[in-house]
Amino acid sequence: MSTLRRATPEEQFAELTRAAVDVHVAEELKARLKKSYDTEKPLVVKAGFDPTAPDLHLGHTVLLARMRRFQDFGHTVVFVIGDFTGMIGDPTGKNATRPPLSPEDIARNAETYRQQVFKVLDAATTQVRFNNEWLGKLSSRDVIYLAAKYPVARMLERDDFKRRFKEGRTISIHEFLYPLMQGYDSVALKCDVELGGSDQLFNLLVGRDLMRDYGLIPQMVVTGPLLEGLDARWEGGKLVGDKMSKTSNNYVGISEPPLTIFSKLMSVSDELMWRYYALLSSKSSTEIASLKRDVHPMEAKKLFAAEMVTRFVSAKEAVEARAEWERVHTRGDLPTEIETKALRAPEGKIGVLKAMTDTGLSESNGEARRLIVQGGVTIDGNRVSDTKLELNRGDYVFKVGKKRFLKVHVE
Amino acid sequence: MSTLRRATPEEQFAELTRAAVDVHVAEELKARLKKSYDTEKPLVVKAGFDPTAPDLHLGHTVLLARMRRFQDFGHTVVFVIGDFTGMIGDPTGKNATRPPLSPEDIARNAETYRQQVFKVLDAATTQVRFNNEWLGKLSSRDVIYLAAKYPVARMLERDDFKRRFKEGRTISIHEFLYPLMQGYDSVALKCDVELGGSDQLFNLLVGRDLMRDYGLIPQMVVTGPLLEGLDARWEGGKLVGDKMSKTSNNYVGISEPPLTIFSKLMSVSDELMWRYYALLSSKSSTEIASLKRDVHPMEAKKLFAAEMVTRFVSAKEAVEARAEWERVHTRGDLPTEIETKALRAPEGKIGVLKAMTDTGLSESNGEARRLIVQGGVTIDGNRVSDTKLELNRGDYVFKVGKKRFLKVHVE
Repeated sequence: MSTLRRATPEEQFAELTRAAVDVHVAEELKARLKKSYDTEKPLVVKAGFDPTAPDLHLGHTVLLARMRRFQDFGHTVVFVIGDFTGMIGDPTGKNATRPPLSPEDIARNAETYRQQVFKVLDAATTQVRFNNEWLGKLSSRDVIYLAAKYPVARMLERDDFKRRFKEGRTISIHEFLYPLMQGYDSVALKCDVELGGSDQLFNLLVGRDLMRDYGLIPQMVVTGPLLEGLDARWEGGKLVGDKMSKTSNNYVGISEPPLTIFSKLMSVSDELMWRYYALLSSKSSTEIASLKRDVHPMEAKKLFAAEMVTRFVSAKEAVEARAEWERVHTRGDLPTEIETKALRAPEGKIGVLKAMTDTGLSESNGEARRLIVQGGVTIDGNRVSDTKLELNRGDYVFKVGKKRFLKVHVE
Repeated sequence: MSTLRRATPEEQFAELTRAAVDVHVAEELKARLKKSYDTEKPLVVKAGFDPTAPDLHLGHTVLLARMRRFQDFGHTVVFVIGDFTGMIGDPTGKNATRPPLSPEDIARNAETYRQQVFKVLDAATTQVRFNNEWLGKLSSRDVIYLAAKYPVARMLERDDFKRRFKEGRTISIHEFLYPLMQGYDSVALKCDVELGGSDQLFNLLVGRDLMRDYGLIPQMVVTGPLLEGLDARWEGGKLVGDKMSKTSNNYVGISEPPLTIFSKLMSVSDELMWRYYALLSSKSSTEIASLKRDVHPMEAKKLFAAEMVTRFVSAKEAVEARAEWERVHTRGDLPTEIETKALRAPEGKIGVLKAMTDTGLSESNGEARRLIVQGGVTIDGNRVSDTKLELNRGDYVFKVGKKRFLKVHVE
């Protein structure tokens, strides 16, 4: 461990469990961090990932950000790719979306992972492991030993199994083996800590139980929340709204253009911004507290948006994105001076052509289409090229031609 | 197939399913017997056995007798010893009676099996196979494929699992794998028919299901009943009472002395004798029907007892046992002339000393003990040597000294 990283165990604990949903078991984790600090022996921290082709958005990086925090404190992070089950696919053949993956598929997907996750994780120290390395070697007898460690009734307590069992939907017996095998990953790696999403809590605790059964010290488990989408609202003292997903179109993809990332993040509410800070920023809690105290929220938001562009693209692009965003939003007309028009979107979204025509930015849908095709329309600083673009509820700054600005409030 | 064995498919079906509990599926079994007859290709018939040290009684031989009937018609019988699970034992460690068996244990037990089962089966044509041969070779991936073939809910329908699940008693997941692995035996052997006790029906049907899943023609399943014990009573037109077991002390061990086997079988009711004929005798149904019609039940019983002594010991011993039994039971006093005394046994059993004293066969327990030690007491033709012998409810013919006969009815 570098001396730079020698934060106290208490400081480490506070940062590592920041905005966590579950910590099993807090006191034990503190004790292990203390021991690691005293002995200068890093903890082994695991997180498991499907071997499917990843196309990550900000929500996926919540976990990666926590893994990175462990790395920053000098701990050993193991990125486990679940190629064993991936190579099996769905043996019942019922799930067409889970055909078996070839070793070539797995290798290709793993490479795609590397390209994306090392934008967050430290490539130099991350251990990437494939669980077929140990699971593929288990004999039928080993699998029986493994299965003997866990009771049917407890497995049926897992939310999705419980629901399917209650509803009389089929659960094949091999589905009970998967959580055990994922748990066996922790046995094979002798993990100190496993990280995951809060929806993975059951599986992570299986790993904890199994380690005890195999005579190892059970791992600690820390889960993080599913990230709120860009459109989350602040209601009754909390954030409400769909979780970030492609389907809900309320996401920031980590491979999007810099200005898009920057602009999307600038569109969120102040409350959501502070939530994103807690879950995603590499700034310490102390730094975040000082931003909150001393800096205008608009500036804090720009700093966060720039941090994300820096992370996913580059520092240079972050500077340029900020400048471009500011040029659009402050030059010519100050934001307060831009006229605002409201539009109703009864189904939650409205097409760009209709939005332009209804607000008077164009005379007709035909003219709106021409303006877009000619490249004369930007929204939040991004040139619009798709005439079928749909706008969700939220605020959009339209620029049409060189001078016409309009803030459109879709509600 | 020898021409001697060329019974018609209809005749075969009748004999092979004699006194069966379940036949899955009768019409299909007939069709397969027909095809086997036409093509002269024997059916492959499997029965599985635990690799524990066997000490067989007549109840265990019901299954063997049915296997033998298949052999007599020229079919191929595979005697599968479940060494795979035996070598694993109980991985939960909860079942002290199921420690893992070493290969040496297994080999020793298998030899003990051979010595006993070949009193019923044809040693020359029986195939003895150990399922570790194929189950031990399965990989973790193979086990997942196997487990994927069967739903959790259906496994929980098995009586014992259902009961334990309902009562909140632990079922470990590996217990779900055992029926699948036993079923896989049928896949590996491409069985036409599997035989077992009626308590094994669920497991046998798993084998049937799995064969279908592995693209094979599903096996037929024939189960036989658990044999009624020697003390079964004829009530309301049916046999009632405990099944034959050592615990209930209502059994005939296949390694008991010839006269004991003969005498015990002579003590059963006529109805029970005909039941034993159907389940155990190698006589055809036609022969049994003719015995029933033309022969006195006492003679039929002697023939059956002699058949069993011949099977388990030798023809010579059977002749001798019959002669000795008849000498005791017919010389001096005809059975009908023997005085009968009744004794109450409130706890279901009474010591031999007390029985003798209470019925006046001796003046005191002390005298009874002396008579026994001097070798002067026989019960049902067997010399009593154990002064602690306990008599269960039932009828016993005591002979004390050379002339004193008394029938004791313990109730």
